[in-house]
Amino acid sequence: MFFQTIDILGTIAFTISGVLVALDKKMDPFGVVIIGFVTAVGGGTLRDVLIGETPVFWMNNMTFIYVIIATTVITILIKKYINYLRTSLFLFDTIGIGLYTVVGIEKGLLIDLHPIICIALGTMSACFGGVIRDILCNEIPVIFRKEIYATACIVGGLVFFILRKFSADQNFNFVIAGLVVIVLRLLVVKFKISLPSLYK
Amino acid sequence: MFFQTIDILGTIAFTISGVLVALDKKMDPFGVVIIGFVTAVGGGTLRDVLIGETPVFWMNNMTFIYVIIATTVITILIKKYINYLRTSLFLFDTIGIGLYTVVGIEKGLLIDLHPIICIALGTMSACFGGVIRDILCNEIPVIFRKEIYATACIVGGLVFFILRKFSADQNFNFVIAGLVVIVLRLLVVKFKISLPSLYK
Amino acid sequence: MFFQTIDILGTIAFTISGVLVALDKKMDPFGVVIIGFVTAVGGGTLRDVLIGETPVFWMNNMTFIYVIIATTVITILIKKYINYLRTSLFLFDTIGIGLYTVVGIEKGLLIDLHPIICIALGTMSACFGGVIRDILCNEIPVIFRKEIYATACIVGGLVFFILRKFSADQNFNFVIAGLVVIVLRLLVVKFKISLPSLYK
Repeated sequence: MFFQTIDILGTIAFTISGVLVALDKKMDPFGVVIIGFVTAVGGGTLRDVLIGETPVFWMNNMTFIYVIIATTVITILIKKYINYLRTSLFLFDTIGIGLYTVVGIEKGLLIDLHPIICIALGTMSACFGGVIRDILCNEIPVIFRKEIYATACIVGGLVFFILRKFSADQNFNFVIAGLVVIVLRLLVVKFKISLPSLYK
Repeated sequence: MFFQTIDILGTIAFTISGVLVALDKKMDPFGVVIIGFVTAVGGGTLRDVLIGETPVFWMNNMTFIYVIIATTVITILIKKYINYLRTSLFLFDTIGIGLYTVVGIEKGLLIDLHPIICIALGTMSACFGGVIRDILCNEIPVIFRKEIYATACIVGGLVFFILRKFSADQNFNFVIAGLVVIVLRLLVVKFKISLPSLYK
Repeated sequence: MFFQTIDILGTIAFTISGVLVALDKKMDPFGVVIIGFVTAVGGGTLRDVLIGETPVFWMNNMTFIYVIIATTVITILIKKYINYLRTSLFLFDTIGIGLYTVVGIEKGLLIDLHPIICIALGTMSACFGGVIRDILCNEIPVIFRKEIYATACIVGGLVFFILRKFSADQNFNFVIAGLVVIVLRLLVVKFKISLPSLYK
């Protein structure tokens, strides 16, 4: 129940981010729905396809579909006022990223993949919805140009596997790892830290 | 036999649409074949991958490969005259869309997916070949900017599931649903109806 | 052991080609790693997903991950001098293409796919890492505009299936097919042969 609520908050925030980009590109209603949908579930879908967990997750749980469609409609209707929600949306988004990372890691563990692959799956779940959104909108993915949160996901994943050596309480480890992702991202945005540039 | 003929007509029309876009982008012969191929089978391939129906459909039926290669060669040869076939191609294309929608729905039903997911799979089968074509050609997918037939696919899908409550004759339901898609698209193009704009 | 060495040479060359494109696009470190990774394993990943061989190959063999990450770091560090390695890189790349083609064909044979599909899988393994790289970098894939080596892969595949009618020694056939790809590509580049243009 607790996790499901977080999951829905994350889905809402991701969908809104997709819908806003699509509206900005003057897409038609079909395009807006698809971009909102892809932003919300694209990362997890890619993860499921690569590990062979099919039909992919959102085909077996209608909650995602309903939440995404409702969010899209509401976002279109209140577009003008969405800016007032910026802080809440940023928080939802950050919480979603933390949760998605943890879910991705767990899916990898369930089929005994190597820790590095599990961390990659977690990062993919959290970040690749945005990558697919940007490709469909004909942009170089923003996360490749201005690193936003991939590093936070990777560090959270590392923390999880370090904790695991000391603690058998998997749920505890997952919560801490998720919190690390969330706190790191908040700090990064607060202090405008970014990865060192490769171009001097 | 009847369905197979329709399927081939649809494949031909989709391939030609891809080849023409690729030629327009001044692609080399390899690029032209790939874009023709992807336009014809991309939607169904994505569907099969997402539901885990692998190897994907065109790997088990060489007809698609032969039809697509032959169509590509012929299209390149008669490029100058292809405009005379515009009406026929539009009809083939429309019939293909109706059929692809129905095939996608059927694949979803076979593995007991929710009706909404089945409709999504049908729409994906019919529309996402064009989406992948446009991404490979570095364009924002045309269907996201100027809705052409996705709505017709969705309505056809809804009709199928409504009919299903009243009629046990699945084939009948499929034919009606396919016809709804086709007629809707013809009407939309004839009367230049488009979805209401979200940008006032 | 022999094949594994070739595989690593190919992976290194493909990764470097991706990293250089990503640096050119001024991507951040995360983007550079992802583009290097996708260029190296993207073709094989697509192949595995389409035939349902999941989790995809690089999830079960950490060598790829280590080689790609090390190559990326080294490439960034010695970027200025990489031009001196041009000839070696071109050779590695060519050898990689020959090997990837053969690996793709073999994967198709293992699940009894039609020879044409096997050749398509081989060509996909060798060429589609670059296609995905270009899409992520928001470019029309270079291989669709200026055919570089897809034809060599296809011819190598044809040679394999012709040899197979006469020789039961599969390893021999694979080696010859791989060499055909390599030699053809070297000749093409040496004599600047390109496919006839479709645009007169």
